Amino acid sequence: MGDIGANLETARLLEGYERPLIRNAWYCAAWSHEVTQEMFPRRILNMPIVLYRTEAGKAVALLDICPHKLAPMSQGKKVGDNLQCGYHGLEFDCSGACVRNPQGDGRIPQEAKLRSFPLLERYGVLWIWTGDPARADESKIIDLRHFEDPAWRTIKGGHHVDCNYMLLVENLLDLGHALFLHKTSGGISDDLVLSETSIEQEGDMLRDLRLYRDARPPATIFGKYAPKGVRLDYNADMLWVAPSMLMSHNGCSETGRARDGSGLSLRGTHLLTPETQHTMHYFYGTSRNYALDDPEIDEAYRRFQRDALKAEDSRVSEAIDGLLGQTMALGVRMVTLSTDVSGRRVNRMLDRMAEAER
Amino acid sequence: MGDIGANLETARLLEGYERPLIRNAWYCAAWSHEVTQEMFPRRILNMPIVLYRTEAGKAVALLDICPHKLAPMSQGKKVGDNLQCGYHGLEFDCSGACVRNPQGDGRIPQEAKLRSFPLLERYGVLWIWTGDPARADESKIIDLRHFEDPAWRTIKGGHHVDCNYMLLVENLLDLGHALFLHKTSGGISDDLVLSETSIEQEGDMLRDLRLYRDARPPATIFGKYAPKGVRLDYNADMLWVAPSMLMSHNGCSETGRARDGSGLSLRGTHLLTPETQHTMHYFYGTSRNYALDDPEIDEAYRRFQRDALKAEDSRVSEAIDGLLGQTMALGVRMVTLSTDVSGRRVNRMLDRMAEAER
Amino acid sequence: MGDIGANLETARLLEGYERPLIRNAWYCAAWSHEVTQEMFPRRILNMPIVLYRTEAGKAVALLDICPHKLAPMSQGKKVGDNLQCGYHGLEFDCSGACVRNPQGDGRIPQEAKLRSFPLLERYGVLWIWTGDPARADESKIIDLRHFEDPAWRTIKGGHHVDCNYMLLVENLLDLGHALFLHKTSGGISDDLVLSETSIEQEGDMLRDLRLYRDARPPATIFGKYAPKGVRLDYNADMLWVAPSMLMSHNGCSETGRARDGSGLSLRGTHLLTPETQHTMHYFYGTSRNYALDDPEIDEAYRRFQRDALKAEDSRVSEAIDGLLGQTMALGVRMVTLSTDVSGRRVNRMLDRMAEAER
Repeated sequence: MGDIGANLETARLLEGYERPLIRNAWYCAAWSHEVTQEMFPRRILNMPIVLYRTEAGKAVALLDICPHKLAPMSQGKKVGDNLQCGYHGLEFDCSGACVRNPQGDGRIPQEAKLRSFPLLERYGVLWIWTGDPARADESKIIDLRHFEDPAWRTIKGGHHVDCNYMLLVENLLDLGHALFLHKTSGGISDDLVLSETSIEQEGDMLRDLRLYRDARPPATIFGKYAPKGVRLDYNADMLWVAPSMLMSHNGCSETGRARDGSGLSLRGTHLLTPETQHTMHYFYGTSRNYALDDPEIDEAYRRFQRDALKAEDSRVSEAIDGLLGQTMALGVRMVTLSTDVSGRRVNRMLDRMAEAER
Repeated sequence: MGDIGANLETARLLEGYERPLIRNAWYCAAWSHEVTQEMFPRRILNMPIVLYRTEAGKAVALLDICPHKLAPMSQGKKVGDNLQCGYHGLEFDCSGACVRNPQGDGRIPQEAKLRSFPLLERYGVLWIWTGDPARADESKIIDLRHFEDPAWRTIKGGHHVDCNYMLLVENLLDLGHALFLHKTSGGISDDLVLSETSIEQEGDMLRDLRLYRDARPPATIFGKYAPKGVRLDYNADMLWVAPSMLMSHNGCSETGRARDGSGLSLRGTHLLTPETQHTMHYFYGTSRNYALDDPEIDEAYRRFQRDALKAEDSRVSEAIDGLLGQTMALGVRMVTLSTDVSGRRVNRMLDRMAEAER
Repeated sequence: MGDIGANLETARLLEGYERPLIRNAWYCAAWSHEVTQEMFPRRILNMPIVLYRTEAGKAVALLDICPHKLAPMSQGKKVGDNLQCGYHGLEFDCSGACVRNPQGDGRIPQEAKLRSFPLLERYGVLWIWTGDPARADESKIIDLRHFEDPAWRTIKGGHHVDCNYMLLVENLLDLGHALFLHKTSGGISDDLVLSETSIEQEGDMLRDLRLYRDARPPATIFGKYAPKGVRLDYNADMLWVAPSMLMSHNGCSETGRARDGSGLSLRGTHLLTPETQHTMHYFYGTSRNYALDDPEIDEAYRRFQRDALKAEDSRVSEAIDGLLGQTMALGVRMVTLSTDVSGRRVNRMLDRMAEAER
């Protein structure tokens, strides 16, 4: 594929054409700890949704709109495991069925129900399936066992970003940006030079593998625990699972033994949930297999999440989002670099998924 | 009429189609006391209007736009009973005619005038007619004589709401919402069960009559003055006069003598004035024929206006307004209840009025 | 030309039709002193632009969008005279050429460049040409030599206005508004009566000349330095150079010797730069040839800029901008006065220029 083709393709995706939202997919609706028996409203893929737990602790996701007069259910109240609309009192059970009409003749219209969403609790995440319930396939959820493995310690966080979710997918698929955007926040030295890179595609997944031989890992990656006085192979890999679950792996080992699992390991989990076409919820976890009890390292990763993931990535992504659709008018001819291969492939895969949904 | 028809009709009205604004109608432009000789700008039915009084005290309503360069007249100044544009000094009398051009050759262009609106002061309300002046019929103004009758005491209020005015018309036409939305603010007991209901339609008016036999009226209605130790018939009726004047009547009498006028009576006046398609001015008065000099009752009604009419009704109506036009995309199939009859009829009547205006 | 024709024409321009933005023109991008070696982002004619100076002091204007991922260059950093994108590190020189790609294979895509704008520094103003560079003609820049002439003292200022720039062009082309809008801020007496007026058109320029014989100039014009006890000819002229450079000249001389250059002189410079269709940057300077060292006069002109140019002109122009496109719906029939001739002509000239650009 020639460069011009690639340029045009990228331009087409960015230029005014809205990036597609994929419905038939699992998204992180919330961290498990965010949702209690209290109603918790959150907009996901343009749908107002109310999350809550039953008295038995099961998490539930219902459309947050009463079908009578469109009042938000989350402005009403819980009655046992049911939701009572705060406007006229229609009551719905946790399957979304209307079970009480306290008005007039008390008859319950057959169509009266709240759409219910498949919701799965796994790894401390509430996963919501926003498409056809018949197609909700649990095996498609990313493997986050390290979130619950005592051999690992995870620092979780999250924030809201005013951009299309694909801008952050592309951001994560090219970690080369860290050398500039996160140079200070990430403590990255100038002498970090990529040795090998490869891309593996398999079904709805893509792996972007980067290896730095004989390298010094960025200061924030392993901090004071980074092995000293030895030559290291340092890998910074990214796994993408469609449409917007990503997991980075930073590891080190003695030179010549790249990815042998022997050294320190850092796993970054990035769960991107579109809120609307131009806003998103960003959930992330930073997991390490070393220094589990060192609060100083906890704080270092919290700081990195705050400075790099929140401040820096949001700032640039929100600025870019504001320019989507203006490039043609501005006469900007976009270019792609060799490092954009993963991003381009992922865009094409999502285009095909969106096409299949239409 | 079958339920499916009713559902579709309601959905059609709510779904993306803008609720009509009726031009040939009287609206409350302001309370009398709001308007002095100072210019008072207010947007009504999408029109910027300036209200003021002449030195003789007559209230005037003119379009708040100078036809020369479109400057708001209300940014200029009063010169006697005239308005002088603050930009280039064109002067208009209180009929809207241009009477002075201080620029250049001083000639007054024949077309130079401000649109003048029929404005009637009655019952302490400034009523504006926003349509064809030839059709302004004073007999269509709702009867609010109790506002000025010494046998009654009225607490007035008002606020701005970010919703289409029809959402509050429907709100008022189904007082059943009070049992849920205003349960606390209205002090409504659970044992209030509707005995009889009827709807009377007559010209541009509709009456929704609700009777509770052997009942205890809500605590806020008559407060400590509610008759004790006797069995009561309690009525909660609503009169709607097209397009958006409403008057509630809450009364009580000995059981079996419903609406005989013998007991305590509470009249709620609700004047809804569209500002734009999705914002409105809400004017209300709560009038009672008892305990005229008890400041504690004054304060109780002020609290009810603040908590119920302002906080609760606005919150739910503004949330609903934000969802108008999204229900189809969200796959919401709306339902109607037996208590929605008045609302459906009023929507149909307004549709016909709007059709006639087109 | 009949009045109806004139009315229709003005209405057509104001009514819903967006006033044209002229691309092939010089605009004030910034005062010279605003731009240092630090990057200075400013949106001009809907284009995000970054201004900065090289180490040698030459001012540069580049499109503030990296062609790789659309990140704003101004969020990156300076590397010598080059700009380095803060996202992935692409580096561009001050001609806009990409000179370094630190990612992947390091190859620089041929198309990778930032659009560069002709930028000229003259009279303490950075002039940007926003259209076809081949047509950038320096001779079209307004003569502001008095900004640098020691015989004159200039007070400069500027602010941002939320209106289409043409509203301020029309404002300045009819100084008659000062008698009303700036009556207090400008200290204008009621007895100021126009004696002679004429309009001269020449190429892309228009002169609107106004003479007051035997007059007392407005208090703010010459302040306590105004000649006393003599009869004066006072002129208040405006020169417009397409599309939005304007210069006023207020002068006085002994009666019968109008514009002989003998008396006090005040030059007002007004540089209007569209930011978007409905916002603009307003740069102004007030220059006098008298009382050069009197700080009280400095302060008087600063006050006039703040009260008249900023507060009064902005307030009315922003209100008018909000009504553009609504007049037809509101049934406003616009009128023109004899003093609107310059404004009408300038609108027609700009229409022709815009037509030629399409």
